[in-house]
Amino acid sequence: MPDLVTLANIRAAQERLAGVAVHTPLLPCIWAPGDGDLLLKPESLQPIGAFKIRGAYNKIAALTAQERERGLVASSSGNHAQAVAYAARLFGARATIVIPDAAPQHKVAATKALGADVVLVPPAERDVAARQLVKEHGQILVPPYDDPEIIAGQGTVGAEIADDIAAAGLPAADLVLVPVSGGGLISGVATAIKSLSPSTRVVGVEPELAGDAAESFAGGQRVEWTPEQTYRTIADGLRTTSVGVHPWEHIQAHVDDIITVSEDQIRAAMQVLAVRANVVAEPSGAAATAAYMFAREQLPPAATTVAVVSGGNVDPALLADVLGQHY
Amino acid sequence: MPDLVTLANIRAAQERLAGVAVHTPLLPCIWAPGDGDLLLKPESLQPIGAFKIRGAYNKIAALTAQERERGLVASSSGNHAQAVAYAARLFGARATIVIPDAAPQHKVAATKALGADVVLVPPAERDVAARQLVKEHGQILVPPYDDPEIIAGQGTVGAEIADDIAAAGLPAADLVLVPVSGGGLISGVATAIKSLSPSTRVVGVEPELAGDAAESFAGGQRVEWTPEQTYRTIADGLRTTSVGVHPWEHIQAHVDDIITVSEDQIRAAMQVLAVRANVVAEPSGAAATAAYMFAREQLPPAATTVAVVSGGNVDPALLADVLGQHY
Repeated sequence: MPDLVTLANIRAAQERLAGVAVHTPLLPCIWAPGDGDLLLKPESLQPIGAFKIRGAYNKIAALTAQERERGLVASSSGNHAQAVAYAARLFGARATIVIPDAAPQHKVAATKALGADVVLVPPAERDVAARQLVKEHGQILVPPYDDPEIIAGQGTVGAEIADDIAAAGLPAADLVLVPVSGGGLISGVATAIKSLSPSTRVVGVEPELAGDAAESFAGGQRVEWTPEQTYRTIADGLRTTSVGVHPWEHIQAHVDDIITVSEDQIRAAMQVLAVRANVVAEPSGAAATAAYMFAREQLPPAATTVAVVSGGNVDPALLADVLGQHY
Repeated sequence: MPDLVTLANIRAAQERLAGVAVHTPLLPCIWAPGDGDLLLKPESLQPIGAFKIRGAYNKIAALTAQERERGLVASSSGNHAQAVAYAARLFGARATIVIPDAAPQHKVAATKALGADVVLVPPAERDVAARQLVKEHGQILVPPYDDPEIIAGQGTVGAEIADDIAAAGLPAADLVLVPVSGGGLISGVATAIKSLSPSTRVVGVEPELAGDAAESFAGGQRVEWTPEQTYRTIADGLRTTSVGVHPWEHIQAHVDDIITVSEDQIRAAMQVLAVRANVVAEPSGAAATAAYMFAREQLPPAATTVAVVSGGNVDPALLADVLGQHY
């Protein structure tokens, strides 16, 4: 069983991330329905448009200069790709990114624009292809979630939430909602929240169509879905087929529940976030808000809920479509 | 000549606004073109979706409890309306808002949802109608810009910009771009910036189709346009026909220039803000970013530019349309 990340690891990540990641504000939602206040944590405002910069930069910063000179490699559906490309550029290191060929074109283009080399492969081969690069060229793998430094970096989201609520003199949030894919974000957030604000519940949110983590949590055993299953969801950032080994340990130790939302609930939350909160969220980024809005019966009662808007890198055509629908 | 607002007035406003207005972050734009960094100040993330909450709340907080009990009245194209409605609600005071009947329906609905009484009038009659309410019912007018407490409240935007840049150990910004309508925002921002960061230039941005302030600045004399002229612009928050008396004094004392941008430049900036920065901006809110992107030849050279995104309360259909265009 791997060691769990601690608050000290997260505080060290916070020091490294100063001036790189944005300390995103908590946004009060005065338009939210009456039964419990909603605060948004808009990680969509990060330099690469998602929280992933936190973990990737923290991991790369923790390497030695010699390791960084060997070059970095990552396998990602998009946001982690941009995060590694951008963090590598900040260190003057070379990055090669393996991207599933089903990923949205705008995410591929954004990764290339950040100076990374991009290799497109079928979804099922992404991890193999990345390991091949490590083996053949000695590059350093920056994993998307199954790594203590990645988890510690993502955990800075949770530390900021708890710190900002305490600094404002507000009572602790009752509930923090976090989207779940490989589990790096929720592992870090839950570690920070349970250290700094023990009364706060941390609940993960997944699409029904990629509900492997919810099934794992309910059964107490880590299960794996197929890419054919998880690629059905519109939430392209949440299509990982299983949570990682390290995240699974953190989830079992710190997370209170994992629930699911439907595709229409995700779309409706994207619309509400854009129209009422002026926040552009990608489908994955809207999942936690969807849970607050539509899955109340699955959640513990909460006077104050924080929803992490994990990213905003959405195809403009999809956003335009969502804006024009009636949900 | 009215007294100018001071940094001390702005600091007092900051104290009042703690816990009410969001301290919005400065967002680095790694996608911005190479000649000079861009930082966004996303006031679109405020509780009512625009900076106006700062001035309105500061003004109402500075009244006596007896004055607030008489009820508040405001005349506004939308965002100031929501700001007064929301601030009044926080104090348990009653608000009556006079709105031009040409204002977007979603802004009228949002104002009513905040518990205010709404009176719709033709654009030319808005100020007369508001004064009538004051005269007949003894209500207190909360002006949208022509008032020292309003200017001091909006000035907290500038104080946050200068403070955050200094706290991050970054060199002073060379340029701060601010949209101009009645002039309250730029008056406050310029006052704060010139006090805290004297080397920074402050430049106002207006739509060409509502360019009264640019014409006033160029000629050294406050001119007035007609509503028929200013209502041509898509930027419904920038249709004021003249800057206010107090703002004009502040603009002459502290502002370095006022320039204009075209309607297409505003639309293109809205698209870029949504797609690259994940920030929903209304047309008025995109004007300063449009100047950075398309009016470089009118601006002083700048290694770092801050663009104030003043608000995000845009008709969803317009945002969807802008997302689908090629600019």
